[in-house]
Amino acid sequence: MKRAVILLSGGLDSTTTLYLAKRNGHVLTALIFDYHQRHKKEIKAATKIVELNKINRHFVRTAFSWTHSSLTDKKKHVPENRNLVTQVIPSTYVAGRNIVFLSYAFSLAESIGAKKVFIGAHVQDYSGYPDCRPEFLRNFERAANSGMKSGDIKIEAPLINKNKKEIITLGLKLKVPFEHTWSCYEGGIKPCGKCDSCRFRIKAFEELELVDPLLRK
Amino acid sequence: MKRAVILLSGGLDSTTTLYLAKRNGHVLTALIFDYHQRHKKEIKAATKIVELNKINRHFVRTAFSWTHSSLTDKKKHVPENRNLVTQVIPSTYVAGRNIVFLSYAFSLAESIGAKKVFIGAHVQDYSGYPDCRPEFLRNFERAANSGMKSGDIKIEAPLINKNKKEIITLGLKLKVPFEHTWSCYEGGIKPCGKCDSCRFRIKAFEELELVDPLLRK
Repeated sequence: MKRAVILLSGGLDSTTTLYLAKRNGHVLTALIFDYHQRHKKEIKAATKIVELNKINRHFVRTAFSWTHSSLTDKKKHVPENRNLVTQVIPSTYVAGRNIVFLSYAFSLAESIGAKKVFIGAHVQDYSGYPDCRPEFLRNFERAANSGMKSGDIKIEAPLINKNKKEIITLGLKLKVPFEHTWSCYEGGIKPCGKCDSCRFRIKAFEELELVDPLLRK
Repeated sequence: MKRAVILLSGGLDSTTTLYLAKRNGHVLTALIFDYHQRHKKEIKAATKIVELNKINRHFVRTAFSWTHSSLTDKKKHVPENRNLVTQVIPSTYVAGRNIVFLSYAFSLAESIGAKKVFIGAHVQDYSGYPDCRPEFLRNFERAANSGMKSGDIKIEAPLINKNKKEIITLGLKLKVPFEHTWSCYEGGIKPCGKCDSCRFRIKAFEELELVDPLLRK
């Protein structure tokens, strides 16, 4: 049995990764984090995706109480209409987030006998977030394995070289229910349309001459 | 200012590391984990050490709910009178524990502008626990830095090549209040004397012709 762990945020990328991994025959356990992000909407989305796919899941409730990120501190503003081609790390950066998430994922993987950890990291993210870079993922895989009993768990980031348009195209083929995913950094009734995450998503749907189902609802 | 984070369990090793780092002029922030270990006694010990030294501290409450470790599952038995020179990983191993702990420590370090993370890992531990090995610590340092904004945080494991006897000798010089530390895997009134952690500690005090102050109380 091809057991694997998937880091599931409830966003478009990790959900597409889940459908891809499942299509390729993996028996998945989803790992979902409540890390005091600005809203619970993405956690609800992740839970819905898990239910639709009838897969196992674990929740980790934690906090990065010391960080100064606009993604975890509601008193701060999420940047709006930012230059998306800049290489500047945005204020939504949470120090060490994927390092912590992957650490738990490796712990879970070893405990359930899974040999793969899936993550939805990709090329557009790592222009801004250092913990989405392929170099980081490779280094982390080596480090974690050198500190574990099993020592043979792989990180799979199948979207790493894709942009958002290519991810949506793949998602459409895999019948990903985009209407149940949530990418916006804010937790409104509809996506704000102004944060980086919304803008990458809306732009990609537009380029494909499609309307994001979240905007249709 | 030489800011640093220290992973503090409340045991003899991490407490000695704290006194050493402080003596060497570091301004410390302690990171203490409540990860559903068998008892709260070591957390109380860590809190006491923090109070005695008047340093900042952060708590992380988490769980490794999926692990099968005798250190987090009270229904299991902690091994007693085990062969201490074996290389077999004991049932007290918690999958990925130091990987998770170091991940949080790097997140905290970057957030407060600290350039060092102190950990009390040492030679006797890494015979059994893979996440105490020097190779793992080096790999993790490289990995974490490649996934962070700062990228220049160092892991300091000053006890790495010492055995318990040498650690106690160093602690005595540094006036470490061993009576306020707690090493036993069980949470009794006195240390059980049978778990690996007790036996390494008792043996080392005996070799130095001293009595562990915890046994005197």
